[in-house]
Amino acid sequence: MSKRLNIAMLGCGFMGRAHSNAWLQVNHFFPREHKPVLKACYGREEDRKKLDEFAARWGYEIVETDWRKLVARDDIDLVDVCVPNHMHHDCVIAAAEAGKIVVCEKPLAMNVREAEEMVAAVEKAGVPNMVSFNYRRVPAIALFKQIVDEGRIGQVFHYRATYNQDYTISQDVPQGGMALWRLDSRVAGSGVTGDLLAHSIDTAEWINGPIRRVTAYTKTFITERRHADTGKVEKVDIDDACMFLAEFENGSIGTFESTRYARGRKNYNTFEINGDRGALFFDLEDPHILQFFRYADPQTGKKIEDHLTGWQRIHVTNFEHPYMKHWWVPGCTIGYEHTFTNSFADFLASLEGGPKFQPDMRSALRTQRVCDAVLDSARRGQWVEIP
Amino acid sequence: MSKRLNIAMLGCGFMGRAHSNAWLQVNHFFPREHKPVLKACYGREEDRKKLDEFAARWGYEIVETDWRKLVARDDIDLVDVCVPNHMHHDCVIAAAEAGKIVVCEKPLAMNVREAEEMVAAVEKAGVPNMVSFNYRRVPAIALFKQIVDEGRIGQVFHYRATYNQDYTISQDVPQGGMALWRLDSRVAGSGVTGDLLAHSIDTAEWINGPIRRVTAYTKTFITERRHADTGKVEKVDIDDACMFLAEFENGSIGTFESTRYARGRKNYNTFEINGDRGALFFDLEDPHILQFFRYADPQTGKKIEDHLTGWQRIHVTNFEHPYMKHWWVPGCTIGYEHTFTNSFADFLASLEGGPKFQPDMRSALRTQRVCDAVLDSARRGQWVEIP
Amino acid sequence: MSKRLNIAMLGCGFMGRAHSNAWLQVNHFFPREHKPVLKACYGREEDRKKLDEFAARWGYEIVETDWRKLVARDDIDLVDVCVPNHMHHDCVIAAAEAGKIVVCEKPLAMNVREAEEMVAAVEKAGVPNMVSFNYRRVPAIALFKQIVDEGRIGQVFHYRATYNQDYTISQDVPQGGMALWRLDSRVAGSGVTGDLLAHSIDTAEWINGPIRRVTAYTKTFITERRHADTGKVEKVDIDDACMFLAEFENGSIGTFESTRYARGRKNYNTFEINGDRGALFFDLEDPHILQFFRYADPQTGKKIEDHLTGWQRIHVTNFEHPYMKHWWVPGCTIGYEHTFTNSFADFLASLEGGPKFQPDMRSALRTQRVCDAVLDSARRGQWVEIP
Amino acid sequence: MSKRLNIAMLGCGFMGRAHSNAWLQVNHFFPREHKPVLKACYGREEDRKKLDEFAARWGYEIVETDWRKLVARDDIDLVDVCVPNHMHHDCVIAAAEAGKIVVCEKPLAMNVREAEEMVAAVEKAGVPNMVSFNYRRVPAIALFKQIVDEGRIGQVFHYRATYNQDYTISQDVPQGGMALWRLDSRVAGSGVTGDLLAHSIDTAEWINGPIRRVTAYTKTFITERRHADTGKVEKVDIDDACMFLAEFENGSIGTFESTRYARGRKNYNTFEINGDRGALFFDLEDPHILQFFRYADPQTGKKIEDHLTGWQRIHVTNFEHPYMKHWWVPGCTIGYEHTFTNSFADFLASLEGGPKFQPDMRSALRTQRVCDAVLDSARRGQWVEIP
Repeated sequence: MSKRLNIAMLGCGFMGRAHSNAWLQVNHFFPREHKPVLKACYGREEDRKKLDEFAARWGYEIVETDWRKLVARDDIDLVDVCVPNHMHHDCVIAAAEAGKIVVCEKPLAMNVREAEEMVAAVEKAGVPNMVSFNYRRVPAIALFKQIVDEGRIGQVFHYRATYNQDYTISQDVPQGGMALWRLDSRVAGSGVTGDLLAHSIDTAEWINGPIRRVTAYTKTFITERRHADTGKVEKVDIDDACMFLAEFENGSIGTFESTRYARGRKNYNTFEINGDRGALFFDLEDPHILQFFRYADPQTGKKIEDHLTGWQRIHVTNFEHPYMKHWWVPGCTIGYEHTFTNSFADFLASLEGGPKFQPDMRSALRTQRVCDAVLDSARRGQWVEIP
Repeated sequence: MSKRLNIAMLGCGFMGRAHSNAWLQVNHFFPREHKPVLKACYGREEDRKKLDEFAARWGYEIVETDWRKLVARDDIDLVDVCVPNHMHHDCVIAAAEAGKIVVCEKPLAMNVREAEEMVAAVEKAGVPNMVSFNYRRVPAIALFKQIVDEGRIGQVFHYRATYNQDYTISQDVPQGGMALWRLDSRVAGSGVTGDLLAHSIDTAEWINGPIRRVTAYTKTFITERRHADTGKVEKVDIDDACMFLAEFENGSIGTFESTRYARGRKNYNTFEINGDRGALFFDLEDPHILQFFRYADPQTGKKIEDHLTGWQRIHVTNFEHPYMKHWWVPGCTIGYEHTFTNSFADFLASLEGGPKFQPDMRSALRTQRVCDAVLDSARRGQWVEIP
Repeated sequence: MSKRLNIAMLGCGFMGRAHSNAWLQVNHFFPREHKPVLKACYGREEDRKKLDEFAARWGYEIVETDWRKLVARDDIDLVDVCVPNHMHHDCVIAAAEAGKIVVCEKPLAMNVREAEEMVAAVEKAGVPNMVSFNYRRVPAIALFKQIVDEGRIGQVFHYRATYNQDYTISQDVPQGGMALWRLDSRVAGSGVTGDLLAHSIDTAEWINGPIRRVTAYTKTFITERRHADTGKVEKVDIDDACMFLAEFENGSIGTFESTRYARGRKNYNTFEINGDRGALFFDLEDPHILQFFRYADPQTGKKIEDHLTGWQRIHVTNFEHPYMKHWWVPGCTIGYEHTFTNSFADFLASLEGGPKFQPDMRSALRTQRVCDAVLDSARRGQWVEIP
Repeated sequence: MSKRLNIAMLGCGFMGRAHSNAWLQVNHFFPREHKPVLKACYGREEDRKKLDEFAARWGYEIVETDWRKLVARDDIDLVDVCVPNHMHHDCVIAAAEAGKIVVCEKPLAMNVREAEEMVAAVEKAGVPNMVSFNYRRVPAIALFKQIVDEGRIGQVFHYRATYNQDYTISQDVPQGGMALWRLDSRVAGSGVTGDLLAHSIDTAEWINGPIRRVTAYTKTFITERRHADTGKVEKVDIDDACMFLAEFENGSIGTFESTRYARGRKNYNTFEINGDRGALFFDLEDPHILQFFRYADPQTGKKIEDHLTGWQRIHVTNFEHPYMKHWWVPGCTIGYEHTFTNSFADFLASLEGGPKFQPDMRSALRTQRVCDAVLDSARRGQWVEIP
């Protein structure tokens, strides 16, 4: 018995595209009762032409330039918030108040205050909700988590994460506009901290538990850029790079770094964990690979034969690996887009009585707290506790 | 102005699924006039339950267990042949005679004789046709070809290819049935030669020109297996492994190997070319990577600075790379399935006045000739010329 | 005309062995006038048996358990200080006052105060001196520096370094004694900061210029260990791990981390630099490899062809690479030990009118300042300027 | 009680240098009774200047340009044959007849006939003898053999080997002379077959047992080169490349390839073995690494947990790894030269009652038989049995 799930997509940019694709794909690969339908999409009036093309390409029935109207419609079951960060707060709250299921792109909000209000709204409304930290559903990252949970790492000493890219190095890159709103602090809230480190922090706490305190540093390398909307050279307020040291509550310690100025790194979202029994390393540039160092048996703690230890390159495409039995055959990779498909598959399952979906907005609020603490520490040049 | 393109899918197995997905995806990523519609699908009566599920999942309007009827329907524009190898011949010829556009999975046929008749049929009918050697549309493989064509390799000395897997090592794997018909010679024609080496040969000749002669060796490691249809232990006739040496017409020489007994290799479709000016290496287990060794300038032949030569790991996800501007952003990979999407995008473009699609059946006939020569050489223990 | 260079080796442990080997090897591979002679060696009376074996193995003529006597001998030209850290200060000063050429293992001293006195002594005596930061003479690291100096990296944005190992994770490892004095703070001064980070800092400032300020964190995971000398469980005072953030004077920023608790990492001395024109990465576990990302021409700043950028794995064994023309042929690696041989080759050259050897003690004092600032910052939980 | 072992070195080229170094090093790292002494060396009268420099650099007491005189001296215990291939036969036989211990560089001889006579001579004389297939003593290759012998690979299906280089691609490289005698068939006997494939074959049979039959192909890409001795352009008779298919007696099959025209490959001596229980891969360009795929327990045959299989990169520098406890500490690599040191350490041990050294000349004769069969097969274009 299939149930239609009418979706209102807010946003017709990169993320609107990624989510639309995943909603269309999910039933082809995962057995779910809900059948997502791309019912309506929203974009700004000034982006009308792009919006119409977007709707035509993905098959949206309704096109709308007033998002409040769209959210209020009776024939909408789920609102998917893919607009820039500064609109998340209002869109999510309105959707929750209209009783819709709410999906929101990360980072959840511009800051903790906004995020708290959003969590209050969805929890008051009692609506199912998710935040799209899609990388948790990269099969190799899900396997990373599984191996830690199986006790194969043991007592953790170290965690280290980077999320490095290189696409804004040139002075000629403008800020603002549809494509580069991430460089405009009024729209994005922060720079790499909300954009990239939010992923690193979400993954880190999911895998290694809460961060207790941080000391951080941020840097803006290019301090003035032409604004795409005004055409004028304006001050750049976002952080081009952010790095911090962390104490975790479990006694382990960590380093984090994120930047858009790491020449040569395209999507270098890496993290490594080292414990007494083993270690793991992941790099999003080779998303189908998980590196695992087995040192001791997870039950007995007994060492592996000494001449046989080494970093193991697990090709995460076996049927036994998370999500992979739904896709192709061993040896065949899935792509970036399927992190969204896997996410929606799990989210639909949770609507159908499966395990509660994580991260929801409450969980994403936690990540927001760490992000805010990081930025606060960087401003003050001091260690800051996560509240 | 969009044109509906009604598709009849013959086959509801692994390839039927891969093709269905690609037909649905192609318009979302590539601007094409033709709009593929999954109109009808065929499966065997004994697979009825699976067929119905397949149709429901992918949205086929019509389900049919007599392929000849399906091929004859007026409302079908294109027949996509994804049934096992032994049916290719009849299906393709019937489709051509019915004036349909024909798509056929590789290998084209059971042998050269069949393939010649198929080519004759499509050419007589004058119908557009393609054979799904999908790996030509892995962006990194397309880039491999492009770099060779740019003169960056120079005079070629060596070519070497492997296509190694490990999934049939156990005696417990049966032959035949829906999943393992590739082990049944009556259905598959040959073992790894048609299944895997056909890919290696298609790519090799596309990149490095015609093979002149070969000396080959085949091996069946497990010579008896239970047959899934009869339940009886029967002789295994297919080649579990095949290896050959080759002379190319351009004066270069090559080694080829394929097996399903290479423990540890899942989808190890690799090839390397070495010339006086450069070299390239590709491995399908890391499909987003192309390794390039630059030695000399393609125009002048002048050496690169000596202290700066090394194998370069190109992350083939930039907008400048083949197909990638249609997908996501630099650093984001696409998966196995999109080798089919890219193929159909090019095939539709060729229907719309773009470059003639390759490989068509005539081109695949050539690959069949090499496969047959390889098997013939293995039987006779001698060098064999490709006719 | 060859000149004998009589060497007094202080220390018969791991470093005594590495230096002895390198003194014997240097003339076989590098044309130098000086002929090092292993004249005398010193070890503690309680290590007499080991000392005698050491002398026999390496061919030392004289064995001595009073280092002051050895340093004072007329027939000694050069004193090589390979004893534990807490003895560096007295040995170096005595050697300088006796007018000997002085070689000292790193870290230079227990702290800046000691280091300043040592620099004052060698400079007052006017004796040639070197500190054995041997990794500068790994060919791939020398090439790293060369490529930066050629302008191929351009304006630097980021520097990141780790030096991670895993050999002290077990509670059963004792502190102190001949082998594990590095765990005893009275002998070693500090833990990973002096042992491993000193290397990272020396290399970082050599390549990327002075560090301006740091914020650091240290951790001792196992806080009590049996002492090998006393047999009693005693408090462990050294840092098992140290991590810090840094600002460089050239406007770039950096992360540094070192630990002996990174399960799976044996000798993971890595560093990466990212500039607008290129990037480099090195990992001491693959010491013959340098990874280079070329983005733009060093002279013109013009971008490389977009479809050809990628990390290049330079096999640093060509005749054109630093030091390599003195060893074997392209493709043949040298080992860990030859970082010392290369160092002594350069040091002898500097005695013979070649370029002044770096790092000397004044240069190593600078590294000591950064180490002390790091430890100070970790104690105080604040940013600290390097004086 | 140490025993002097007076060595006569025949040859002062690349191999003379590598062997001299190893004789001097062996006692520093391995406890052996024999103390090799570099007593005398031989070179041609026309290379007198080079010979004198060689003797001075390595400390040879005696310099001689008549090798027969040298071999006959009473004060020589061991003759080390490092002259070009065409002299091996006479030198070895003379040394054996003079009752000397004989060491010979590979390949043993110009052909099987010569090799048989040499084996007869050393066996008649009853002198200890070794052939320097030094790569057996790369620690990672010794570990490869050990893991196979531990039953961790199980029933073998495949073996594949390459030994590819790129240093003779240019037309400007001359043949003949001291450096490039390997291109002169009268001196070298064959091209890559004796030079490179001999290594591959020695390793293959050592690890995987005897080869039963082969079909081979050889190629000379540049057919005329200036001769360094005569100054004239002369025909090139050696094989620039050689490739062959093989059946092993244990039922497994193999591919072999060697060339000096594989642009980008410097010392690409690789081999892989695939069995039902595991697989191994080695590449001499990363000599400290062994790749191991564990699939099943060597005793029980039970599969490893499915989600944890992957190629493991063993950093072969632990104390538990072959030879490594004699060198430095885990994480520290040794270089190319120490394959010779390890070889001499084992050879001296065999003189002192340790395990019989392999490969001796009888064992190397076997490799010669395979090489001759390969060349014969290439000439005749047919499969050839190894006698």
